[in-house]
Amino acid sequence: MSKESRQKLNHEEILGKRIPLSGIENAQRAPVWGILDNVRSLYNVGSIFRTSDGAMISGLMLCGFTPTPPRKEIEKTALGATLSIPWEHYKTTGEAISAARDRGACICVLEQTSQSKSCFDLTEQTFPVCLVVGNELTGVDPGLVRHADIAIEVPMYGTKHSLNVAVAYGIALNQLVQTWREQMVVRKVRDARA
Amino acid sequence: MSKESRQKLNHEEILGKRIPLSGIENAQRAPVWGILDNVRSLYNVGSIFRTSDGAMISGLMLCGFTPTPPRKEIEKTALGATLSIPWEHYKTTGEAISAARDRGACICVLEQTSQSKSCFDLTEQTFPVCLVVGNELTGVDPGLVRHADIAIEVPMYGTKHSLNVAVAYGIALNQLVQTWREQMVVRKVRDARA
Repeated sequence: MSKESRQKLNHEEILGKRIPLSGIENAQRAPVWGILDNVRSLYNVGSIFRTSDGAMISGLMLCGFTPTPPRKEIEKTALGATLSIPWEHYKTTGEAISAARDRGACICVLEQTSQSKSCFDLTEQTFPVCLVVGNELTGVDPGLVRHADIAIEVPMYGTKHSLNVAVAYGIALNQLVQTWREQMVVRKVRDARA
Repeated sequence: MSKESRQKLNHEEILGKRIPLSGIENAQRAPVWGILDNVRSLYNVGSIFRTSDGAMISGLMLCGFTPTPPRKEIEKTALGATLSIPWEHYKTTGEAISAARDRGACICVLEQTSQSKSCFDLTEQTFPVCLVVGNELTGVDPGLVRHADIAIEVPMYGTKHSLNVAVAYGIALNQLVQTWREQMVVRKVRDARA
């Protein structure tokens, strides 16, 4: 197709490509959970719900003082994604991580550490996985960082210390989901040959 | 290294890995520009500056009614990145695109169209490139979408229409910069062999 025939999709055309909320129980969800370790901002939490819907992950674990739905400020940025993404609240992030380990998940913290891997280098990542993101000012608790299975980071080439938590979550989460989808394709090709 | 030896980096250790603002003129910038087509929110503009610093791109072109620094709401989310990322204001986005084309840049819109490519499939992308993102409600102007060189999108698997513009920009921008870095590595290996 030439670029002259490129048409921006309108609202109805886009929604026609989406899962309707009424059919959400049949959605294919990536085996990925987000764990929010004491995220403070209602707007960041809402944005993380919206991003999680786009990637269609399995759920969110909201921990500690992370605010939970229903809150009008969360809705302002979630735009309804609190209805399509299952969530649970845990009193501490440690409890959420224990529950995730019981479900067999790899615990992956998004944090700059002495041995973080680039989020663009995840080919050997195992699933299910939980992506742990931390507080806007203090990041993920150092004790949790030490005991996680893996630490990843968004490569930073500039002058600033860190990214906004909702943006960093979006970048890393989409890499994880993309990695899972690529692994699925490889597995299907292998199975078809066997 | 075992995971027990994994240490979260402290503020000073992280800043030690960054470019100081005083040395910013020597920074290696990716040949990527962001073009903001009538983005409304001061907080989104600030967040886009912060993300652009993390990826160390060449600059931002703020168009139409997109707000420009200095504004305290932009600074709240830019956290100083308005000093490390060069920016220009253009009365219309069309003028910015003409200027970018004059500099030899490929015009890449981030928009859901009849022929958008996934932002995870950019191996043949050419540089320099301008990533055009649009207004929070209406997206990129349809006329600009039609005349761009390429349209890319963040794959969406859920129920919602779109992502927050600052999150979508972060995902797509980091893919472009990562693609450029991978192409540089390939070129270096090839040159070393020749």
